[in-house]
Amino acid sequence: MQNPKTLEQLSVFESLGSAETFVDRILQIVEHISLFEDFERADIEVLARYMNCYRAAAGREIIREGETSDYMLLIIEGSIEILKLDARGLPQSLGVSGPGKTLGEMSLIDGEPRFASCVTLESSVFAVLDREALTRMLTEESRVGVKILVELLTLLNQRLRGLGNELMKCRDNQRLRVR
Amino acid sequence: MQNPKTLEQLSVFESLGSAETFVDRILQIVEHISLFEDFERADIEVLARYMNCYRAAAGREIIREGETSDYMLLIIEGSIEILKLDARGLPQSLGVSGPGKTLGEMSLIDGEPRFASCVTLESSVFAVLDREALTRMLTEESRVGVKILVELLTLLNQRLRGLGNELMKCRDNQRLRVR
Repeated sequence: MQNPKTLEQLSVFESLGSAETFVDRILQIVEHISLFEDFERADIEVLARYMNCYRAAAGREIIREGETSDYMLLIIEGSIEILKLDARGLPQSLGVSGPGKTLGEMSLIDGEPRFASCVTLESSVFAVLDREALTRMLTEESRVGVKILVELLTLLNQRLRGLGNELMKCRDNQRLRVR
Repeated sequence: MQNPKTLEQLSVFESLGSAETFVDRILQIVEHISLFEDFERADIEVLARYMNCYRAAAGREIIREGETSDYMLLIIEGSIEILKLDARGLPQSLGVSGPGKTLGEMSLIDGEPRFASCVTLESSVFAVLDREALTRMLTEESRVGVKILVELLTLLNQRLRGLGNELMKCRDNQRLRVR
């Protein structure tokens, strides 16, 4: 259900097949996540048809900063660190994500190079949705497709507010230090 | 075409009626904006049915930081400054927007208090889309509604990448200074 490039990029990880076999797990995981509160079982079942699952061992780079790919991940099991190189070329941790969290939405949306890297901290299972699958879902299953778009909007919006506040704090600190 | 709260909040500005009379202007403005490249005249005509237009004199606060409202603006004429209070309570400019730019999408999406204020630098005309109108458009005109969602996603995504880079730079500066 994914484009050949996505399949090739993910071929280094253990393929667990269609996400349809993970519907129960996904439902358990997203049950307590407000972002998915509009999703009923039938919606997850539709979504799962457009996603494949993979397992990666600890210490594997699932997404590499600067590389081009257009899929996002829904973490089903494990934990994944987000890292970005600073001006000196040293990786800085931007946080750790676990089950129910999504990663890589920005490149799913714009196809631009990855903003940061994602590295598994332990053996992890994740479901993958790429741009082609999302586009197809919007045509074939527009009701669920629209729900996904609204979820992504809500998610990006939350991040934007969070980042905006962090940037203000950082600049406040700079101003205070300059005085 | 808007909910009573939006109408009340905007009642202090000169109402120019439905955006349908501004379709030509909007088309001219968005013609060179890549974000709207997928929009044909027919799409703008549909969108315009869900928006109202207003004019505000110079120096007017169109959106106030911390207040609750759920509309976004498409600037048709003029220029508008975005301001946010810093830790000392002093307004810091986050930039100036002009024709073709949108403002206030975050609260349209999540209904949360405004992140920043928007003040006209000169007499300005803007079209307003609120959450109720967007929801109705998704039901009544789902094809154009989905286009709007995709545009909003692309826009938020661009801002997220921009803010992410700015935050990295700010933190790099801090680290360099601390050394």
